[in-house]
Amino acid sequence: MRRTGLLMVGALIWPLSATAAVSPETSDCLDCHRLIHPGIVSEWEKSRHAKATLEEALKKPSLERRVSLSEVPGSLARVAVGCAECHLMNPEKHGDTFDHEGYHVHIVVTPDDCTICHPTEVKQYSQNLMSHAYGNLWNNPVYHNLADSVNGIQTVADMETTFKGPDEQTHADSCLFCHGTVVEVKGTKTRDTVMGEMDFPVLSGWPNQGVGRINPDGSMGACTPCHTRHRFSIEMARKPHTCSQCHKGPDVPAYAVYQVSKHGSKYSSLSQDWNFSAVPWTLGKDFDAPTCATCHISLIVNPEGEVVVERTHGMSDRLPWRIMGLIYAHPHPLSPDTTLIRNKAGLPLPTELTGESAMDYVIDKKEQDGRRQVLQRVCLACHGSGWVEGHWTRFENAIRTTNEMTLTATKIMLTGWEKGAAKGLAQNDSLFNEAIERKWVEQWLFFANSTRFASAMMGADYGVFANGRWYLSKNIQELADWLEFKTKE
Amino acid sequence: MRRTGLLMVGALIWPLSATAAVSPETSDCLDCHRLIHPGIVSEWEKSRHAKATLEEALKKPSLERRVSLSEVPGSLARVAVGCAECHLMNPEKHGDTFDHEGYHVHIVVTPDDCTICHPTEVKQYSQNLMSHAYGNLWNNPVYHNLADSVNGIQTVADMETTFKGPDEQTHADSCLFCHGTVVEVKGTKTRDTVMGEMDFPVLSGWPNQGVGRINPDGSMGACTPCHTRHRFSIEMARKPHTCSQCHKGPDVPAYAVYQVSKHGSKYSSLSQDWNFSAVPWTLGKDFDAPTCATCHISLIVNPEGEVVVERTHGMSDRLPWRIMGLIYAHPHPLSPDTTLIRNKAGLPLPTELTGESAMDYVIDKKEQDGRRQVLQRVCLACHGSGWVEGHWTRFENAIRTTNEMTLTATKIMLTGWEKGAAKGLAQNDSLFNEAIERKWVEQWLFFANSTRFASAMMGADYGVFANGRWYLSKNIQELADWLEFKTKE
Amino acid sequence: MRRTGLLMVGALIWPLSATAAVSPETSDCLDCHRLIHPGIVSEWEKSRHAKATLEEALKKPSLERRVSLSEVPGSLARVAVGCAECHLMNPEKHGDTFDHEGYHVHIVVTPDDCTICHPTEVKQYSQNLMSHAYGNLWNNPVYHNLADSVNGIQTVADMETTFKGPDEQTHADSCLFCHGTVVEVKGTKTRDTVMGEMDFPVLSGWPNQGVGRINPDGSMGACTPCHTRHRFSIEMARKPHTCSQCHKGPDVPAYAVYQVSKHGSKYSSLSQDWNFSAVPWTLGKDFDAPTCATCHISLIVNPEGEVVVERTHGMSDRLPWRIMGLIYAHPHPLSPDTTLIRNKAGLPLPTELTGESAMDYVIDKKEQDGRRQVLQRVCLACHGSGWVEGHWTRFENAIRTTNEMTLTATKIMLTGWEKGAAKGLAQNDSLFNEAIERKWVEQWLFFANSTRFASAMMGADYGVFANGRWYLSKNIQELADWLEFKTKE
Repeated sequence: MRRTGLLMVGALIWPLSATAAVSPETSDCLDCHRLIHPGIVSEWEKSRHAKATLEEALKKPSLERRVSLSEVPGSLARVAVGCAECHLMNPEKHGDTFDHEGYHVHIVVTPDDCTICHPTEVKQYSQNLMSHAYGNLWNNPVYHNLADSVNGIQTVADMETTFKGPDEQTHADSCLFCHGTVVEVKGTKTRDTVMGEMDFPVLSGWPNQGVGRINPDGSMGACTPCHTRHRFSIEMARKPHTCSQCHKGPDVPAYAVYQVSKHGSKYSSLSQDWNFSAVPWTLGKDFDAPTCATCHISLIVNPEGEVVVERTHGMSDRLPWRIMGLIYAHPHPLSPDTTLIRNKAGLPLPTELTGESAMDYVIDKKEQDGRRQVLQRVCLACHGSGWVEGHWTRFENAIRTTNEMTLTATKIMLTGWEKGAAKGLAQNDSLFNEAIERKWVEQWLFFANSTRFASAMMGADYGVFANGRWYLSKNIQELADWLEFKTKE
Repeated sequence: MRRTGLLMVGALIWPLSATAAVSPETSDCLDCHRLIHPGIVSEWEKSRHAKATLEEALKKPSLERRVSLSEVPGSLARVAVGCAECHLMNPEKHGDTFDHEGYHVHIVVTPDDCTICHPTEVKQYSQNLMSHAYGNLWNNPVYHNLADSVNGIQTVADMETTFKGPDEQTHADSCLFCHGTVVEVKGTKTRDTVMGEMDFPVLSGWPNQGVGRINPDGSMGACTPCHTRHRFSIEMARKPHTCSQCHKGPDVPAYAVYQVSKHGSKYSSLSQDWNFSAVPWTLGKDFDAPTCATCHISLIVNPEGEVVVERTHGMSDRLPWRIMGLIYAHPHPLSPDTTLIRNKAGLPLPTELTGESAMDYVIDKKEQDGRRQVLQRVCLACHGSGWVEGHWTRFENAIRTTNEMTLTATKIMLTGWEKGAAKGLAQNDSLFNEAIERKWVEQWLFFANSTRFASAMMGADYGVFANGRWYLSKNIQELADWLEFKTKE
Repeated sequence: MRRTGLLMVGALIWPLSATAAVSPETSDCLDCHRLIHPGIVSEWEKSRHAKATLEEALKKPSLERRVSLSEVPGSLARVAVGCAECHLMNPEKHGDTFDHEGYHVHIVVTPDDCTICHPTEVKQYSQNLMSHAYGNLWNNPVYHNLADSVNGIQTVADMETTFKGPDEQTHADSCLFCHGTVVEVKGTKTRDTVMGEMDFPVLSGWPNQGVGRINPDGSMGACTPCHTRHRFSIEMARKPHTCSQCHKGPDVPAYAVYQVSKHGSKYSSLSQDWNFSAVPWTLGKDFDAPTCATCHISLIVNPEGEVVVERTHGMSDRLPWRIMGLIYAHPHPLSPDTTLIRNKAGLPLPTELTGESAMDYVIDKKEQDGRRQVLQRVCLACHGSGWVEGHWTRFENAIRTTNEMTLTATKIMLTGWEKGAAKGLAQNDSLFNEAIERKWVEQWLFFANSTRFASAMMGADYGVFANGRWYLSKNIQELADWLEFKTKE
C-alpha cells in the first residue's frame, strides 16, 4: 500500500476544499482512511491544515500569523499539514509508535508534536496550571483522596459502610476525563480489519482529551480539548461551548454563569453575525461581546488595529485570583506544579484550613495587580473606568465574603471532627467520605465557587438562588443541625 | 362553506411556498383556517407535505425516499398532504370524529393515520418501548404508585401527613406529559366562533404530545413529539433540542450530557453550516458530529454513498443496555410491553431488588452484541477501533459500578424498612412516599442514571459533580445518617 | 476638544453602517470615544439609533413605528440618536451630571431620558411591577429580611451561629443585580486618562442594569436590561436569552422551562430563519413559535396584517396570575407598588400565611378574565379552542395544587415555630435564617414556582423531576423528618 516518491497534489485529490499539496505519506494515509474513517478525513479537509502550507502561513504579517515558529523546517514547508505530518512526527519519542503499512505511526498526537509549528503556544501552555492538571490532582494526597472518596465503591454490612478503591476505568471516566489520564502502551492487539489482520498498540487511559493528559511521549497536556480534532478550528476554540466541556458543573460553573450574563446573552442572540475566524480578532468589528477566549486567551485588537491584549495560552496569565477548586479563593499559585506547595500545617494546599494564603507559593500583590490590569484592558474597551472599578470592587468583595462563609463552615466541621461526629485526620480517616464532610466540601467546592464566578462574570442568579448565596448561608445552618443530630445522645 | 369538484392548485393559492396541488377538501379547510389559525397554516405551507405529492416522493431513489409505502393510494397520489389528507383519514376508527362544515373531521392525528405513507416507521415505532410509554408506567403497579407518590396532594394534621390521590389534570401535567395521556371523547361543547356557533368534541387528556399517548382511534403513540406539527421538519427531528423536550431532567439527562460532550460542543459551535434536511444523511458531508438522531435513529451513509446504518424508529434497536428509569441498568426488555415482566420476587421489574436481571424478559447476550455492533458502526466512522473499545469498556464498567452503588443504597433502605425507619411492602405502604425512600430512589433514578449517561456519551462532569458520582457516594452516607437519625431513641 | 457649529454627516465619518447625520455634540463624543471605547461606538454604529432620524421614524405607518411620541422635538428631528442625544438629556435633573470636555454629561441614561421618543413604553413600564422591583423588595420588611438572611455573613462560636448584616456590595452583587440598585453620586474621583487628568463622579451601586434601578435623576427602572446598550436591538430583546439573564434560576425558571418546551425547541431548531427585527411582528411569516416577548410584550399581527395583540411594556398586562416569588400564587397585585399591601395579619404580603388572597390589593376576577383573554389570543392563532381550554384548565389546576402543597409545608413550619424547632416571629427572629425555615421557603420559592412555570409553558420535566413535583412532595416529608430530628429529646 506504501507509495513513495510521488507528490500528490491536494487540489487534484480533494478538489472541493483542500488546496495545499499533500505529502506522499499523507496521501498514503488518505487512500485507506478516507474509506475507513470518512468522518476524520472530511473534518481535516475542512481544516486550515489541509488548505495552507507552512510557507504560506509564515508570509502573513505578524499579527495575522497562526504559527509561531521562526524558521521553516524544509520537510514541512510546502505541503499541507496532513495525517503523516503529525502522526509520524518524533516516532522515536513516542511509546505508542507502531509499524503500520510501512510507516512508524503513533496514535496520540501531543503538544510536543504540535510544537514544531506552534512553539510559543506550547511553551505558554506548559507553564500553565492546565497542563499540570493530572499531577496537581493525582500527586496531591489531599486531592487524590478526594477523588477516591468520590469515585470509590461503597458496600454496606451491619450498617457500616466500607470504601473500596475505585478502578482505573472509573477514574478515567470521572475526574481524569477533564484532568487527563496517563496514556501508556499496555500491549498489542491483533485486529481483523477491512484491510486484513493488523497489530495495534493497546493504550491505558484511552480515549482521553484531558487538558493535563500524560502522553506516551512523556509530554503533558493535550491541544485537542479546545482545538478539536481534526479540524482544529479557531472558530470552535473561541466559542464558549468548547470551554463548557469542562467548565459548566457546580464545581466550576463558568459557562453556566456566562450564559445568563449580558455577555452570554449577546453571544446567544447576536453571534450568528460575528466572525470567529479572523486573526487578529478585532473587537467591535468581528464581535460585540466577549466569549471566554476573548478575556482569557485571544489576541485582541481594536478597530484601528492596535493591540488591546496579546495572545496567551497560559490560561491564568490574566487572572489575579484563583477562585475555584480549593477551599479558599487565593492569589494564583506561582508554579504550575502545585504539588510543591506546603501550607504552615504541612498540607499541600495554597491556604491554611483557616484561609490565610501560603504566601511563599502564590503570586504577590504586584503580580496580581499586573494581571488585573491586563484583563481590565479588555473590559475598558467597552466600559468606562467607573464601571470597571465598581465591578472589580464588588468581585473582590465577593472573594472576601465567600471566604468568610467558608471559614464558618470549616469551623463547624472542625468541631464535628473534634466531637466525633465524623472521623478526620486525627483518626487517619478521609476528610471527604462522610455525609457531614460532603456538606462542608460543597460549601467551598460548589457554593462559594458559584458565587464568585457569578460575581466575576456578572451572572446574576448564580450568585443567589442558582447555587449561590442561598446555599452558602443555608448550608451553614444545615451543617450545624447535622452536627447536632449526629452528636445527640 | 363546502366546495367540491374543484381542484385548487397550491401554486396559485400559496404562491410563495407551496407547489403541489391542494385537494378540494384541503382547500376548504384552508379557506377558513388560514384566517383563524394562521400559525398552523403557515407552518404547513413551509412543510414538505405542502410541496411534494406522494407520486413525486415515490419516484426518488430508494435511499432518498422519505415514505415507505409500496403502492400509491390513488386518492392521495397527486395532491399535497394537506389538512384533509390527515384529519379526514379513517373517520370511522376515530372516536374524536365530528361533523364540521360538512366533513367528518377528527382532531387527533395518530400513527395509524400516518401509516398510509410511512408504514415501516410506524411499525418500527409500535414495537418500541416509547409507543408503550403510557401502559408501561400506568399499568405497572410499582410505577403507578411512584407516580401517585410524586403527584399526590399531601395534607398534614397532628404531624401526620396524608396522601390523597392526584387528580387527572396533575398526572397529565406531570408524568403523562411525556409518557402520553389517554385521549378520549368526554362530551360535546358548543362554542361561539367567528364562523358562528359550532359543536366540538371535548377530549380528556388534551392537549398532549406524549410518546405513548393512547389515541381516540385506539392506536398508541404520537409522531408529533419529534416531528413537530405542522411542519414535520426532519431538520427539527434531527436536532437535539427535540429530544431535550423529554430527555433533559435529572432522571434522564441525555441532552444535558450531550451539550457538554465533544459531540455537543461541535454541534453548538459548527452546526450552522451543516445540512439537517438531506436524505440520506451523509456523514462528513452533511454533518461533522452526531446528534441524538445520528446514533439512535437516522439512516447514515458515508461520502461514497454506502450505508453505515439503516434508519430505525425502534429507538432501542441500537442499544444493548437500558440505563435509565429502573432500579438497576439491565439488558433491554424483550417486549416493548414491560408490564408482562415478573422478577423472581413476583414484581413487575426487569431486575431483582438486588440487581440480577429477570433473564426471561430481557434480551440475551447475542442480541446485545448485535445491537452494540450496529451502534459502533457509527462510532467507527470517525474513531479508531482502540478508541471505540476503550470507550465501551469504560461505559460497561460504569454500568457495573453504578449498579453496585445502587445495591448498597438498596441494602440500607431494606434495613430501614426492617427497622421501621420507613413503612414499606410489609406494612402495605408505598415504597416511595417517605423522605428516606426518596433518597433511595434518587440514588438510581437520578445519580446512577446521570453517571451512566455521562459515561455513554462522554459528558464529563455529569459523571462527577453534576449529578454524578459525587452524589452517588454522598447519598449512601446521607442515607446511613438519616436511618441513624430516624432510629435514634 | 469641543467643536461646534459643524454638522458632521454620519455617512462620511462612518461609511460602513451609519447613514443618519450626527449632531455636532455627538461628533465631539465620537472623536475621542471611538478610540477609547471602540466596543461601545461600534455597537452604536450598528444600531437603528445611528441609522435613522426621528423624522424618518415618524413617517412610518402606525404599526411599523418604533417611537411613540406625537410631535418631533425640533432639536432631535434630523440627527442620529447618538451619544449626546441621550447622555446630555435633562442635565439639570441628573445628579450624575458632570463637566466633561465642555459638556454637561451624565453617565446613567434612564427611562426619563428615553421617554422623549418612547413615552408610551416608558409610561407602561412605570406602571409595571418590574419598574418597582427595588422598592418592592427593599421596602418590604419581610422581603428585605429574606435578602439579609441570604446575603448576610455568618460566624460561629460555641456552636452558635451569628448573622451580621451584609454589606452594600454583596446586596448589589446578589438580589439587587436584577432588582436594581440605588445609583447615587458619592463623590468625585480624578483619573489619569489617555486624554490627561479628568474628574468623574463616583456612583454607588454601579454598574447595574437591574429592572427597578433607582436612578440619579430620581426615575425608577432601566431599559438596558432588555434593550442592551449600545445597540438597543429589538432582535435581542425579542430573543429569550435576554429574559434568561434574570429568569432562569430555581426561583423563576421561565427560560429553563421554555428551553425544553415545544416552543423553545422550535426556537432552538428553526429560528435561524426567522425575522426578529420586523415591526410589526407577523406570526407565521416572521416566526413560527413564540419567544417570551411574543406572548408577554410584543405587538403581533397575523399574515393579513390584523393586530392579534397590542404591544405592552406592562409585563403583566397579559397575566391573570402571579405565580412566582410569593408564598402562594395569587391574582396579580393591583398596584405596581406592592409595599402598600397588607394582609389580614398585617403583613405586607398579598396572601395570608394560609393562602387566601388579600382581595383588596389584587386584581378581581373580571380583570383576570380580561388578561387571560388577551394572552389566549396569542395561543389561539396556532391552537384550537379545545387545546387552549385544556391547557388553561391544567395550568389553573397546577396553581391550586401547588398552593395546597405549600399550605401543608407551611403548617409543618408553623408547628416547628410553635414547638421551638426554629425561632420565628414570636421570638422576634427572622423567618428565613434556619435550615428548616429554608426548606420551607424552597417549597414555594423553588418547587411550587417551577411546577407552575412548567405547567404554564408546557415544560414537561420541570413539573416533575427537574425541581417540580418530585421535590414538592419529597420536601414535605423532609420537613416533617427534620422537625422530628430537631424536637427529639
